[in-house]
Amino acid sequence: MTTIQMIDAAAARLKGHARRTPILTSPFLDEIAGRRVLLKAECLQHTGSFKFRGGWSAVSALEPEVRAKGVIAFSSGNHAQGVAAAAKGHGVPAVIIMPEDAPALKIANTRALGAEVVLYDRATGDRDAIGADLAQRRGLTLIRPFDEPLVIAGQGTVGLEIADDAGVEQADVLVCCGGGGLTSGIALALEARAPGLRVRPVEPQGFDDVARSLAAGAIQRNDRLSGSICDAIITPQPGDITFPIMSRLCGPGMAVTEEEALRAMALAFQRLKVVLEPGGAVALAAALFHGDSIEGDAVIAVASGGNVDAAMFARALETLD
Amino acid sequence: MTTIQMIDAAAARLKGHARRTPILTSPFLDEIAGRRVLLKAECLQHTGSFKFRGGWSAVSALEPEVRAKGVIAFSSGNHAQGVAAAAKGHGVPAVIIMPEDAPALKIANTRALGAEVVLYDRATGDRDAIGADLAQRRGLTLIRPFDEPLVIAGQGTVGLEIADDAGVEQADVLVCCGGGGLTSGIALALEARAPGLRVRPVEPQGFDDVARSLAAGAIQRNDRLSGSICDAIITPQPGDITFPIMSRLCGPGMAVTEEEALRAMALAFQRLKVVLEPGGAVALAAALFHGDSIEGDAVIAVASGGNVDAAMFARALETLD
Repeated sequence: MTTIQMIDAAAARLKGHARRTPILTSPFLDEIAGRRVLLKAECLQHTGSFKFRGGWSAVSALEPEVRAKGVIAFSSGNHAQGVAAAAKGHGVPAVIIMPEDAPALKIANTRALGAEVVLYDRATGDRDAIGADLAQRRGLTLIRPFDEPLVIAGQGTVGLEIADDAGVEQADVLVCCGGGGLTSGIALALEARAPGLRVRPVEPQGFDDVARSLAAGAIQRNDRLSGSICDAIITPQPGDITFPIMSRLCGPGMAVTEEEALRAMALAFQRLKVVLEPGGAVALAAALFHGDSIEGDAVIAVASGGNVDAAMFARALETLD
Repeated sequence: MTTIQMIDAAAARLKGHARRTPILTSPFLDEIAGRRVLLKAECLQHTGSFKFRGGWSAVSALEPEVRAKGVIAFSSGNHAQGVAAAAKGHGVPAVIIMPEDAPALKIANTRALGAEVVLYDRATGDRDAIGADLAQRRGLTLIRPFDEPLVIAGQGTVGLEIADDAGVEQADVLVCCGGGGLTSGIALALEARAPGLRVRPVEPQGFDDVARSLAAGAIQRNDRLSGSICDAIITPQPGDITFPIMSRLCGPGMAVTEEEALRAMALAFQRLKVVLEPGGAVALAAALFHGDSIEGDAVIAVASGGNVDAAMFARALETLD
């Protein structure tokens, strides 16, 4: 179970390694939203997403002799890069298991960060068996993407920074939400340090398992697991560890359309000069376009990542007038 | 004459108003450059460029009764928005004189920041006469874009932050250079606070008046004044105030091609998740693609602005593989 003490300890381990990302604002966005909008620009984190924090938190907490053998993760996306960079920063091996149809650029980027990439065939390979075999033979430690207390503690450091830097005492804090690691970590940090800030998960429409789970009081699954441009935050269901935290601390979830996510990316380009990926833009989209379900004269949105290719970004820019 | 005391005083006036912009890095950029690259991301400043600092510095230093009458500036670009936002922040009027063929978006943005925009016909209007008449009738104070000690002091606060945050003692500091306000301000700050950091102006090829002036030891003009995509940093010649400062403190100038500026924009998108305009990317371009004329194992590049339209940004993204 992640505690505020664990989040503080993660912050101490991350100091000098993770970037303290800025909170950005623009009067043009305030006007669209009808209230002040504060964007926590976690897209500016190392590796382009908040995942570096959780990766570093987990790797840095391992006993040195365990860490020296290396770590392993399953991911074709931001978690892969976060774990790879964290392992490299500690000078230990990282093995990342990816489907062989993952985008070539993501495979290349993960390798360039020093990781060994092991590819498997989605149709015929058993990812978990491959990983378990490798982990056992080489003594690697598995770093889970969200249902892992040390990872949640690392993501929670985003919440500590919001509590320190936002200068707002009462507001909704909208968080792009996949498995719930970032959302639950921020919620735990704010519970302790800024209890007037209430976390609300934001998801793409059609993939709002967390919002439905919160409403139902029990874990709900998504019908589909693919087919969204917000691929970074599509998960089957909330985590067994993250869901009880969100259930206790979070306000109602929100869901935005893909078009709204693309427009939020374009406005972040135009007004804030930062690059967001679709899944990293859903919280800003909710702040800008769903203001009628938000209360208060300010809203905080967490931009969770910016790893987007040029073609998708160009598509977002086409939404500008 | 701008002094380090004036820069410190400007920093005190800017505190809580200007953003302390982050220094961003990526191992992928280090590999291209052959050394560590530290990017001072001033594109994340309010209004999307460093010009907000100079504008705020000048407006905040006025006597209250003078300031209350308002300020005036000639600009169709970043200086206009910087002065407009600074005046708005002080609750005083701003008049911005722009050519009537300025892009509609820039006119709209400047108006949206609360400024009164006065348009003139480039072919038949006398900009200076219009401005002088308005200034006299309404008691407005003219804020010059670079040849003004208080503006230079404001831009110099970028140098104070580099001295504090870079963690590097010996390096070239590459600065996107137009009239030289940012370059000379940073140079003065670093002379006092980090004398091992040497400022070098970077310009577009064909518009390298500052580099040629430094080499000749006397002010040289550009042959052309338009026709560059790096419009934000195209000026006829270095300023009468900025040139002696640059001449005393700066290393040799550098010049990059438009293609290099576009590639630097694309790499900043891909690896750092920030938006640069062409003129704001020339320093990064020099760091990445002209490493043979740089010494040392680290280089600092200042990204001066990010006010670029979607079409030009899409053109930059096309340079990615």
